[in-house]
Amino acid sequence: MTEASSHPNDSFHVFDTTLRDGAQREGINLTVADKLTIARHLDEFGVGFIEGGWPGANPRDTEFFARAADELDLKHARLVAFGATRRAGGKAADDPQLAALVNSGAPVVTLVAKSHDRHVELALRTTLDENLEMIRDSVTHLREQGRRVFIDCEHFFDGYRANPQYALAVVRTAHEAGADVVVLCDTNGGMLPLGVRDIVAEVLAATGARLGIHAQDDTGCAVANTLAAVDAGATHVQCTANGYGERVGNANLFPVVGALEIKYDRRVLPEGRLAEMTRISHAIAEVVNLAPSTHQPYVGFSAFAHKAGLHASAIKVDPDLYQHIDPERVGNTMRMLVSDMAGRASVELKGKELGYDLSADRDLVGRVVAKVKAQENLGYTYEAADASFELLLRDEVRGRRERFFALESWRTISEQRVDNGADNEATVKLWAKGERRIATGEGNGPVDALDKALRTALEGIYPQLAKFELVDYKVRILEGQHGTGSKTRVLIESSDGVVSWSTVGVADNVIAASWRALDDAYTYGLLRAGVEPGES
Amino acid sequence: MTEASSHPNDSFHVFDTTLRDGAQREGINLTVADKLTIARHLDEFGVGFIEGGWPGANPRDTEFFARAADELDLKHARLVAFGATRRAGGKAADDPQLAALVNSGAPVVTLVAKSHDRHVELALRTTLDENLEMIRDSVTHLREQGRRVFIDCEHFFDGYRANPQYALAVVRTAHEAGADVVVLCDTNGGMLPLGVRDIVAEVLAATGARLGIHAQDDTGCAVANTLAAVDAGATHVQCTANGYGERVGNANLFPVVGALEIKYDRRVLPEGRLAEMTRISHAIAEVVNLAPSTHQPYVGFSAFAHKAGLHASAIKVDPDLYQHIDPERVGNTMRMLVSDMAGRASVELKGKELGYDLSADRDLVGRVVAKVKAQENLGYTYEAADASFELLLRDEVRGRRERFFALESWRTISEQRVDNGADNEATVKLWAKGERRIATGEGNGPVDALDKALRTALEGIYPQLAKFELVDYKVRILEGQHGTGSKTRVLIESSDGVVSWSTVGVADNVIAASWRALDDAYTYGLLRAGVEPGES
Repeated sequence: MTEASSHPNDSFHVFDTTLRDGAQREGINLTVADKLTIARHLDEFGVGFIEGGWPGANPRDTEFFARAADELDLKHARLVAFGATRRAGGKAADDPQLAALVNSGAPVVTLVAKSHDRHVELALRTTLDENLEMIRDSVTHLREQGRRVFIDCEHFFDGYRANPQYALAVVRTAHEAGADVVVLCDTNGGMLPLGVRDIVAEVLAATGARLGIHAQDDTGCAVANTLAAVDAGATHVQCTANGYGERVGNANLFPVVGALEIKYDRRVLPEGRLAEMTRISHAIAEVVNLAPSTHQPYVGFSAFAHKAGLHASAIKVDPDLYQHIDPERVGNTMRMLVSDMAGRASVELKGKELGYDLSADRDLVGRVVAKVKAQENLGYTYEAADASFELLLRDEVRGRRERFFALESWRTISEQRVDNGADNEATVKLWAKGERRIATGEGNGPVDALDKALRTALEGIYPQLAKFELVDYKVRILEGQHGTGSKTRVLIESSDGVVSWSTVGVADNVIAASWRALDDAYTYGLLRAGVEPGES
Repeated sequence: MTEASSHPNDSFHVFDTTLRDGAQREGINLTVADKLTIARHLDEFGVGFIEGGWPGANPRDTEFFARAADELDLKHARLVAFGATRRAGGKAADDPQLAALVNSGAPVVTLVAKSHDRHVELALRTTLDENLEMIRDSVTHLREQGRRVFIDCEHFFDGYRANPQYALAVVRTAHEAGADVVVLCDTNGGMLPLGVRDIVAEVLAATGARLGIHAQDDTGCAVANTLAAVDAGATHVQCTANGYGERVGNANLFPVVGALEIKYDRRVLPEGRLAEMTRISHAIAEVVNLAPSTHQPYVGFSAFAHKAGLHASAIKVDPDLYQHIDPERVGNTMRMLVSDMAGRASVELKGKELGYDLSADRDLVGRVVAKVKAQENLGYTYEAADASFELLLRDEVRGRRERFFALESWRTISEQRVDNGADNEATVKLWAKGERRIATGEGNGPVDALDKALRTALEGIYPQLAKFELVDYKVRILEGQHGTGSKTRVLIESSDGVVSWSTVGVADNVIAASWRALDDAYTYGLLRAGVEPGES
């Protein structure tokens, strides 16, 4: 049984190259441990192939394949090593770079080959004939070593337009030498869908080779270009998670898979995995340490978020009126945004989402809308701070401000001597249950110290907060042109180990804004824990 | 002479709806002044139509049209008011909402009309016939008032698939009543390019109406869908700057215009404006207070940034090998990124960009690469901090650390009493030109206070820094899962009123990281000003 036929989904390949091409994105710098974690996420999602890197060219990638052999237990995906055809004038069997690909242990190898005549001459500095021989020799050698081979034809579309005969000769040479898939790469990303579709159809008709597509997003059409190639008969799509990649990026795995599964009704993932898409997209963003793109199709935090008053009223009638799919199919959720544009309908819907039925009290809804508007003018946003919004709503429902403590003052001191580490200390003075409390905390920074001081001041009175943890902390400077004098918005995510909640604070500076978000975070956490509030 | 024929570009419309549909994006909240500023940018870019909002439905939009009449002096664009067809059972001539559109003074009105039978019944709650009558009556009335009318057919594509006869009847009714353009809207954003192209072609053949396209980006194909409609004969494209819009967003104006101008070779902007695209995209992002998307096609900061060692070597041969267009055509620039993935070739290229010829000294390049790698492991990134990279490079070239001052210590204190404002104070102790200096500064926040203290300590010694200004300040928390205990990266942009420069600092906390970025910012600024450094 060959490698090819043993794979259940071999008729259509979802090939992920996040770990190689995705890692070229500005701002991404992956450790081997990061790469292993991402590979597990991709395998869980159910892609067929994971391109892990270029063993031999990069010590980190060599180590990745060595550790993958021990540490990765892939359920669906095959691991792929990426490399180039042998060097000009040599022999594949003697080429150290090809040997490194074989030694990586990966069952599949993707070889990049030049297919644009000008690149062969200018970048590779060899003859057109020798380039074909490099392809033939390299593929034959890897096949003899028992590897399955895919060929990435770099700059294929530009090359085909410049010299179609030569570009086709590259495809035929790779195909005849035993490459399973010939991948047409839009390396510069300059193509549009019509052109991709025409060229893929022509190459398929002229060569009969199994074709794949690798699209870069420089025209903003990488997803559409990938689908256009599929329309024309390509059966192998190369993508990256969240569209990471050099320059603008690569074709984004998630909307490509979303379109294939939902719009084409084509099963390209194992059963049940599509609903993991949002979670896996965000998990990979965590690992590469980039904030998940809130506006990504299908999986973005905003992808099913409704703000317009007009839409919000219609959504009360039927959510499907304003959504192209049920967000649950991809593991995402519909959200109503609290914004002054949305008005009453969305405050009511948001209240309902939080468990408050506001439909009977028009005045109350009006007061909440007015309060939100006033706070938004100060720079607050409740779109990403449900807990702060719920406190605002609760205060209006109850008609009073319920709190667990009343601040008297706080102070933070950060110091550094050149011959010494930094010291950060905070002191909080407050009243809780009739007692005056003073506590000082130290931390890695002034906000961490403030959090510790607040915790110390309160924990004797409210033991429930021992479980609270500050899990994420985001700072946004508003009004970009005014330097450190601008307003600062802080979003804090807290957790009690089971659920998490988000709060917001805005002030002239990062510490005062953090205090406000911390205040809400502790108050909300104690309410959630069922503690009875006092009044302040 | 009619409104239509007086416009030079009337054969093809670039219609911008940033101010209406774009403003629906989560996180955007525009003031009237913001809207006026954005309209000026869009007019300068050269769009044909600017949809300003919905006068009558929203007081801010009513005010926008009133102020636009006095304050906007548009050179290219026509202002468009957006509204809905008259209400069911009434008369257009008596409809207050239509009266508000007329009173707005806008020469063009876009009316949204239902074209999906289910929406007519469920959301509009009227009959299919009455909906057609609402369209006919509203268009006729606005034409009689001397307005040019475009019709937005909401949910057209879904509607056409559900009930093509009715959807076509909507198009015919609007066309026959005198609407100049019938815009087919993919309101839910669920379409793919092939479907758009087929349906636009069918509608054009069946009705002969002039057609436009309005695409949402929920499948990640809004740009491609817009171009597919143009391929099929649409001559009016509705877009938003930077793709802002509800949920995932709208078709992005910049890649649509980029494709039309460069790939289709179709003149849709006034002469010379395409090269303003990058600047205008970023200027609009500033106004809406969202960081410009670094990975946006054509105009993103990363759109022509090269990281891969492989590519960097080829780019030394010929930049066009790895770029789909010359970035200068759209006002962008090629950048080489300094990253350990790139290695020697890109450090050499980056050095050259900064005016250092490193090609002769292999050891030096090796030392710089090693230093960058070590700093990246600490969390530094030089991709967005050219000035800090240049200091690093300069230190290696000179073989010593050149500085203008030596820190002894700094301290910041932030305090807040509940009955009082916040106080922020910083003290810096340092040595410069053999003198010990101690200075205290106050500010809006601790970093602002630190900047003021440093400035006070140094300005007697280095009067050049009186011109320096801190113009932007960005905070990034690294390692998202560890709350305020994480590492913090600060990027600072400084200016001397003529040029600006960016520096980076990383530390356990925001204040220590800010100090490091400030230190580099002052050092670089003084070097630029031609001041002779000491050594420290």
